[in-house]
Amino acid sequence: MNERWKKKLYEIIYEADTKAGKWFDIGLLFLICFSIVLVMLESVASINVTYGDLFLILEWSVTILFTIEYILRIISIKRPLKYIFSFYGLIDFISTIPLYVSYFFAGSHVLIAFRALRLLRVFRVLKLVRFLGEASQLKEALKASRTKIVVFIYTVLIISVILGTIMYLIEGEESGFTSIPRSIYWTIVTLTTVGYGDIAPATNLGQFVASLIMILGYGIIAVPTGIVTIEFARQSNKVHLNTQICSNCQCDNHTDEAKFCYNCGEKL
Amino acid sequence: MNERWKKKLYEIIYEADTKAGKWFDIGLLFLICFSIVLVMLESVASINVTYGDLFLILEWSVTILFTIEYILRIISIKRPLKYIFSFYGLIDFISTIPLYVSYFFAGSHVLIAFRALRLLRVFRVLKLVRFLGEASQLKEALKASRTKIVVFIYTVLIISVILGTIMYLIEGEESGFTSIPRSIYWTIVTLTTVGYGDIAPATNLGQFVASLIMILGYGIIAVPTGIVTIEFARQSNKVHLNTQICSNCQCDNHTDEAKFCYNCGEKL
Amino acid sequence: MNERWKKKLYEIIYEADTKAGKWFDIGLLFLICFSIVLVMLESVASINVTYGDLFLILEWSVTILFTIEYILRIISIKRPLKYIFSFYGLIDFISTIPLYVSYFFAGSHVLIAFRALRLLRVFRVLKLVRFLGEASQLKEALKASRTKIVVFIYTVLIISVILGTIMYLIEGEESGFTSIPRSIYWTIVTLTTVGYGDIAPATNLGQFVASLIMILGYGIIAVPTGIVTIEFARQSNKVHLNTQICSNCQCDNHTDEAKFCYNCGEKL
Amino acid sequence: MNERWKKKLYEIIYEADTKAGKWFDIGLLFLICFSIVLVMLESVASINVTYGDLFLILEWSVTILFTIEYILRIISIKRPLKYIFSFYGLIDFISTIPLYVSYFFAGSHVLIAFRALRLLRVFRVLKLVRFLGEASQLKEALKASRTKIVVFIYTVLIISVILGTIMYLIEGEESGFTSIPRSIYWTIVTLTTVGYGDIAPATNLGQFVASLIMILGYGIIAVPTGIVTIEFARQSNKVHLNTQICSNCQCDNHTDEAKFCYNCGEKL
Repeated sequence: MNERWKKKLYEIIYEADTKAGKWFDIGLLFLICFSIVLVMLESVASINVTYGDLFLILEWSVTILFTIEYILRIISIKRPLKYIFSFYGLIDFISTIPLYVSYFFAGSHVLIAFRALRLLRVFRVLKLVRFLGEASQLKEALKASRTKIVVFIYTVLIISVILGTIMYLIEGEESGFTSIPRSIYWTIVTLTTVGYGDIAPATNLGQFVASLIMILGYGIIAVPTGIVTIEFARQSNKVHLNTQICSNCQCDNHTDEAKFCYNCGEKL
Repeated sequence: MNERWKKKLYEIIYEADTKAGKWFDIGLLFLICFSIVLVMLESVASINVTYGDLFLILEWSVTILFTIEYILRIISIKRPLKYIFSFYGLIDFISTIPLYVSYFFAGSHVLIAFRALRLLRVFRVLKLVRFLGEASQLKEALKASRTKIVVFIYTVLIISVILGTIMYLIEGEESGFTSIPRSIYWTIVTLTTVGYGDIAPATNLGQFVASLIMILGYGIIAVPTGIVTIEFARQSNKVHLNTQICSNCQCDNHTDEAKFCYNCGEKL
Repeated sequence: MNERWKKKLYEIIYEADTKAGKWFDIGLLFLICFSIVLVMLESVASINVTYGDLFLILEWSVTILFTIEYILRIISIKRPLKYIFSFYGLIDFISTIPLYVSYFFAGSHVLIAFRALRLLRVFRVLKLVRFLGEASQLKEALKASRTKIVVFIYTVLIISVILGTIMYLIEGEESGFTSIPRSIYWTIVTLTTVGYGDIAPATNLGQFVASLIMILGYGIIAVPTGIVTIEFARQSNKVHLNTQICSNCQCDNHTDEAKFCYNCGEKL
Repeated sequence: MNERWKKKLYEIIYEADTKAGKWFDIGLLFLICFSIVLVMLESVASINVTYGDLFLILEWSVTILFTIEYILRIISIKRPLKYIFSFYGLIDFISTIPLYVSYFFAGSHVLIAFRALRLLRVFRVLKLVRFLGEASQLKEALKASRTKIVVFIYTVLIISVILGTIMYLIEGEESGFTSIPRSIYWTIVTLTTVGYGDIAPATNLGQFVASLIMILGYGIIAVPTGIVTIEFARQSNKVHLNTQICSNCQCDNHTDEAKFCYNCGEKL
């Protein structure tokens, strides 16, 4: 295969500026979605019993198409190892290999479910077709509030460990608080207001402490909301500033309505 | 029936500017609410046993009134087909027909419950009597944040598929994660902090991953709140600006308290 | 009892400007709290068995004190009927009478629990001793957003009726959706992300629709938060404005940092 | 031990400016985390059976190290009593003593779980190494909104008592509402949207009132979020203001972009 073909393939597979590249991405997207729906239906016992043979054929078709795509990706790129050990490269490998391996190790077929990770590629594909202009604003806001959210989650975890331990001492094994990790799991279930009810306090003291934890969770849930809202507001305000540049002092970030530069008073 | 009557009927049924039109709308509203309460009570086995006969009579009365309304709507409008195949036209049809059909197909009586969809007409009626002035602001804000919310829901769904698949592999059938779709259902139940507890992780690893999902859900719930709050703030600020226009430079959006144009300094 | 005593009593019981009035209010507050704790403990079967006799004595003491208070309130006020049929007057009556009535009607003793309503008087008492300065800001914000919240709750209810009916048709009696009202109850449990799990969808379609409802609930929960936050922001900004009045044009609402009137340019 | 050694020890143990002090803090942090993981694993019955002996050895090692640390802390400080009866001093004592006491009182070994409280020291250590710069902003915001949140929690509690009592009267013992405190516990579980489902209304009226409580909880959850968001916004705005002081009028709080004093017009 000569260099020209390799370059052309690279453009189609890795880029999305050409028409062929766009169609390749969209086709891949559909194939991924199809393969995931396939895995889902296979996992439903009642459906698998009836259509098991059909599923096997489709499964092999998808696997072969994925194999071809994987080989083409390796061939067309200049440094194959970089792709192979990249995040998406590993996902592509993991979602292609299970069916082959299942010949040698019975039960490894279940690993096919990891194919769901390929859904992450959707974000890459969509980015290319510029569908998600709005998403970048969300992403920026979440990025900016990352440090605060980490501090917050950290605090929640420490609170969970302490309260979980206390509840373990109060409730004991009878009400399902069989160990401290399990008790911490219960605390997180309660603090986040999920509340499965698989474990629930039975003693009066336990229910009293649980009530306090819930009201605490009420206050705590307000924190990430507050953080994200403020970041959104900041991003949102940024959007209102235009990119006009003052001819006198070169400063930017003027509002849409401004007639004069806020910095030097020059007419815009 | 001559044209004058048709026009009069049209005004009463489809419009609400005349007194008769308003009364028709309010009467219809009560009839709809009454018919829905009827359907509800009928569905309660213990009540239906006692008052079954009364319910049948009332049901027929409502159906006949709905039939008359449906026929009048078709007669009075110029292009009946447009009404028949419109959203509200189909709902009207579906909520009128079940009792007639139940003579031929036993069991179709249950379709009468679709009558609940007629409640949507309430929004139309209320809009006419201008009760919901405040609602438009809410609606505008939700409309403006639509794109962001779609992106958000889309991301939540992808996360749910991936996490659901992982939990299916971890937990397996014993704890109720019998298939991937069911496992995804569990993930959505957890991420949205609903937490029924009909399916709950039983293994240590499963409970650990579930804790991570819950804390993730904590952060995720902040996103739509942030989006909607910002949009409300923007709508809210818009409301404070009046529609006065500067006589010198024709710019608008002055605040209520402004005495001078923010743009050219002209007295307002 | 002469007029002077009546006036003095009125000041003590109904007002809180004098020292005696304050002490009366605080004493009443403690008596109310004590009586409620009493009712609570009585309702716990295991405690009531042991301390039943003590509880009866304390219960009678509280009832007699409440009776005295009730009589004094009627005597000291100019228009007793206005008090008797006021909101607080009725609560006072209901929380005093059950023990007397229980002589004639066995079982009416349980009505003593209505005494919890007297806790509402706490708000009145606290208002008098000016402890809750901060609360008024909260109250103002909630009042201002009342219309929007009513519209919102109204919309949630209509959505619940429609979705509840649909789930009733999908799931049927086997999974606990035994009637439409019960199904609507389930929908509200789900939309508000409470999720008891006493009723949960069992069919695939039901779980799919439930997932949609949960994600909808996700978005819906953002709405009241947004409304309240904006109102708080508005109240909060109001607080930052001081009450200084321009000597030239008499306008107020200047910010704390302002040196010149925003209206006429006069130095403040 | 002479004074110089004492001073050196004090610097290492209580301060973190020197290199040795930092390493001591980090080492202590790891030891605390290790000891808590130990307690957690011990509480899991299946693991404790297998590794019981190993755990006992490790437990004693940790206890001895904690004992040494405790003694050093007392020796090196000028006023030992102040440390012993301080918050952290008591926690240190409680987390060191259980293993010794368990020789005399069987069962007291379980108190070792209180060691989780030592996790709180993490906050002190992290403060010293200046990792949590972002946290102070969160802390300030929560501090500023403290009064409002207390008023809010207070209101929630009163609402819970009243609604809990009403639900006790409606539902009775059959559906698990066995006493008023238990009924209040259920109300808090519902209002905070946790919803375990260990207690759930079974009667029609109970489910109706529960629905109202849930919708109320929907509105109530918006309040702390609003409060915290506004406080964050205020803190966030503060950050944008720099500490530059106008040379003419000495006022501060200028924005980063300001070139002229907002107060007197002097060039900054």
